[in-house]
Amino acid sequence: MSKKYTIGLDYGTDSVRSLIVDTSTGEEIAGAVFEYPRWKKGLYCDPGKNQFRQHPLDYLEGLEYTVKEALRQAPPGVAEQVAGISVDTTGSTPVAVDERGTPLALTDGFRENPNAMFILWKDHTAVQEAAEINSLARKWDTDFTQYEGGVYSSEWFWAKILHVLREDTAVLRSAYSWVEHCDWIPAILTGNSDPLTLKRSRCAAGHKAMWHEAFGGLPSEAFLVALDPLLAGLRDRLYKDTYTCDISAGTLTPEWAAKLGLPEGVTVGVGAFDAHLGALGAEIQPYHLSKVMGTSTCDMLVAPMDEINDRLVSGICGQVDGSIVPGMMGLEAGQSAFGDIYAWFRKLLEWPLTTLLQETSLVDEGTRQKLADEVSGKIIARLSEEAARLPIGESGLVALDWLNGRRTPDANQNLTGAITGLNLGSDAPRIFRALVEATAFGSKAINDRFMEEGVRIDGVIALGGVAKKSPFVMQVVADVLNMPIKVARSEQACALGSAMAASVAAGIHATTEEAQKKMGGGIETEYRPIPENAEKYARLYEQYKKLGHFVEFG
Amino acid sequence: MSKKYTIGLDYGTDSVRSLIVDTSTGEEIAGAVFEYPRWKKGLYCDPGKNQFRQHPLDYLEGLEYTVKEALRQAPPGVAEQVAGISVDTTGSTPVAVDERGTPLALTDGFRENPNAMFILWKDHTAVQEAAEINSLARKWDTDFTQYEGGVYSSEWFWAKILHVLREDTAVLRSAYSWVEHCDWIPAILTGNSDPLTLKRSRCAAGHKAMWHEAFGGLPSEAFLVALDPLLAGLRDRLYKDTYTCDISAGTLTPEWAAKLGLPEGVTVGVGAFDAHLGALGAEIQPYHLSKVMGTSTCDMLVAPMDEINDRLVSGICGQVDGSIVPGMMGLEAGQSAFGDIYAWFRKLLEWPLTTLLQETSLVDEGTRQKLADEVSGKIIARLSEEAARLPIGESGLVALDWLNGRRTPDANQNLTGAITGLNLGSDAPRIFRALVEATAFGSKAINDRFMEEGVRIDGVIALGGVAKKSPFVMQVVADVLNMPIKVARSEQACALGSAMAASVAAGIHATTEEAQKKMGGGIETEYRPIPENAEKYARLYEQYKKLGHFVEFG
Repeated sequence: MSKKYTIGLDYGTDSVRSLIVDTSTGEEIAGAVFEYPRWKKGLYCDPGKNQFRQHPLDYLEGLEYTVKEALRQAPPGVAEQVAGISVDTTGSTPVAVDERGTPLALTDGFRENPNAMFILWKDHTAVQEAAEINSLARKWDTDFTQYEGGVYSSEWFWAKILHVLREDTAVLRSAYSWVEHCDWIPAILTGNSDPLTLKRSRCAAGHKAMWHEAFGGLPSEAFLVALDPLLAGLRDRLYKDTYTCDISAGTLTPEWAAKLGLPEGVTVGVGAFDAHLGALGAEIQPYHLSKVMGTSTCDMLVAPMDEINDRLVSGICGQVDGSIVPGMMGLEAGQSAFGDIYAWFRKLLEWPLTTLLQETSLVDEGTRQKLADEVSGKIIARLSEEAARLPIGESGLVALDWLNGRRTPDANQNLTGAITGLNLGSDAPRIFRALVEATAFGSKAINDRFMEEGVRIDGVIALGGVAKKSPFVMQVVADVLNMPIKVARSEQACALGSAMAASVAAGIHATTEEAQKKMGGGIETEYRPIPENAEKYARLYEQYKKLGHFVEFG
Repeated sequence: MSKKYTIGLDYGTDSVRSLIVDTSTGEEIAGAVFEYPRWKKGLYCDPGKNQFRQHPLDYLEGLEYTVKEALRQAPPGVAEQVAGISVDTTGSTPVAVDERGTPLALTDGFRENPNAMFILWKDHTAVQEAAEINSLARKWDTDFTQYEGGVYSSEWFWAKILHVLREDTAVLRSAYSWVEHCDWIPAILTGNSDPLTLKRSRCAAGHKAMWHEAFGGLPSEAFLVALDPLLAGLRDRLYKDTYTCDISAGTLTPEWAAKLGLPEGVTVGVGAFDAHLGALGAEIQPYHLSKVMGTSTCDMLVAPMDEINDRLVSGICGQVDGSIVPGMMGLEAGQSAFGDIYAWFRKLLEWPLTTLLQETSLVDEGTRQKLADEVSGKIIARLSEEAARLPIGESGLVALDWLNGRRTPDANQNLTGAITGLNLGSDAPRIFRALVEATAFGSKAINDRFMEEGVRIDGVIALGGVAKKSPFVMQVVADVLNMPIKVARSEQACALGSAMAASVAAGIHATTEEAQKKMGGGIETEYRPIPENAEKYARLYEQYKKLGHFVEFG
């Protein structure tokens, strides 16, 4: 029997990577990474205004390079045995397209216009529009935000569309429809890019665009027009149906097959968001919380549809049928800052290095920069080392992790962080430890909410940078959750998950569960809670909750 | 008419300084500084245990050096025209003495014993004993702590005595009595060092030893024995009467006159604590709050006796008839950390410099140390500069200044500091500004308490390092208090105040008020509140109080 391979493509914030996977063993045969060249130069972005745009050419060039380069590295004959390709991307990252589904930035008159490009997930230019959506949603008969946690974000589909349409009349006149990044790549690979028929991802639609079966699809025309008459008619130029990642979006066009060096007829799966396919790659199981732990966290849980049904789990980010594992309810939660909090503290400690040290005349400019880089690069590791030695509770410090607002439970972007219990002996390792504990307490608050709402958690599977690189943090989280945490082995869980999805879309495996069983990389480490630590943290957690109550309600 | 001069001697924590002052003009003729050599070497101290002791020889050598050196620098003939000398010291800084009033450390068998030396104000070895005093005081018929703010500190007289007597049987056997540093120097200069008759300072007795006329002097024998039978009989070997700083303690002995190069018969004034004579030197006025602003603050207010009488001002540190200005009620308050909070933040930011930078191999060891020193030395100035540019309230940060507990209002050493309103943009200048505002809010809480208790505040006079060196901090304090703050001109307000006290003790001026008028250095700067800032701070102050309430009461 001949081998069959699939390719997973993972479009991250800074780069895209490909991974060729053996569908019978999960062996990762080859892969390649491509950094977006325009993005790297800072083009089309304005960080001061939180404007982050990406040019479609960055994506297209990356697509071609990473697939070809991975095939080049793979043993001979692999290309011919590739049966499927699937894509995950960041999101919500929509783009305005013309009637043929071409991003406006690829058409004349718009090639350098940031409003005609993909609006990256972390672009916050639409804060005002998100506020209007929330305000209108509160008054409307049907709360269209109810399956998205009850609070619509400036990072999402409708807010971004409305913002650009208001700001840019040229785009307003030329935008026929809008497409998410995760839907556009399959559309071009299959040649089916007609906005009215291209296959739209369930996870993008359900988690970010207020799409739900109960609404008959997207929010009603009346709601959208009430939001702004500019939106009139757009709903009909978007979509009614959505698809899960196990569905085929079509097959590779001859042109793209030639361009990538793949056979014609390779199945292209429906796309999905990176976190969701990452959870798949990390072998998410029913009632296991799959935590992508990086700058923020995305916490996903799947449960059989008939056990959740129409029951709304209050205060989480969203629940969408099939958004993560086809056929299961996908429940999403998360912390809006996790590793970002450690990075904030590192940056605080770097202040003398990036300002005063750069002005010294004791050493030359090159050395100044090297010194700052060297020291900065070691801060987190050393803090972790020293913080790990401190007894729990010794410092008296209790911190709150809401430095970027709170995503779950009960989204509130206006909340802020805090540190209490400071004394003149509160040094950097002690404060760092308190911050790590705070992020762990934030994780526990999410677990608690799931369980209070009757959704049990049988285990935790972690992936992402923090899970892989920070044993100190992971042990604290395990102790605080009082639950073992398994860390997935694959270094590329998202790309692996895409390859798994492709194997189902291509009919190699019958279900994503089967794909996980055959292709899963298994567990690398398990952090087990230490009972005496868990007991101490249970007491500190009460203080964390008290502090949270004060910050939220005064 | 010939000139008359007095000498002020100011014993600080690290050094003693002398100042020769023209009693008719206040002109500062000459002065000298002497760093305690044994102290500088760290002898007899154990910072890890908060044990800080000073050898009497450090004081004696400093006495001789600074007076002789100042006279050497003064124009010829000045020595002969010196009419008085007074002393201020830190406190409570007591020492065990034998029957002749000689510190045990100057006698055989005790020369190297830290328990036989002066127990410096900031020595915290007696925490347990202070707790016992407070506990017993709460149960006793008469609350002997009532004129000291209701909370006895480990930094004070009885706690320290009890701790040493329990710990050191050799000292227990040989200690006949105990003498404060500010009383010991006048005692030796005048030759009257008999513990039963040497003149004891009102301010040390009243603020630190629970001495009060209403009690008939020190706390009752029954109370002291109930505290510990080890104290039995000691009360009778201490004192009943106390004296204000305008009283003569006697005249210079021929031996000391010769040693110092002064005429015999020079009047020696009764000693006092540095902050109190500093307030005098900075021209404290009735109902003006005199703020010594340094690592902590000491806030003093004097008011005519007949306007205060027996009324207890609740929650301040102490109120003693004549402790600051003879004939007036001396009211003392203070913040247990002020500049120390800025130093704490500087130290936090220094962490990468003192750890990681010192391990680099990019530059040699000497350069590493120089870089760290250079950068550290600039941190506070640069933070002040950048913080000053930030609009009030822009950061959303609110901090609480209780990092070393709270001294006033309502002493509570168990309280801690806090920072709220943190977000990922909270950088070093923003946090620094919040800390500065917090220390200013702490000052306002003291002003408020005086006023709530019916003690009006007509003005504020500032002295000390922060007052002299930190215009940014001073403007914030003026804005927060919504009150102009005058900064005293003299760089040596404590030594100047001592010289003023000496002029009254020597009969040159009739009262300290007259001495202030003649010898005062006046005002150097005045910080005036900016109305729009005051308004904004009034709102932030409400948040500070809310945060304080949360930290104190949960």
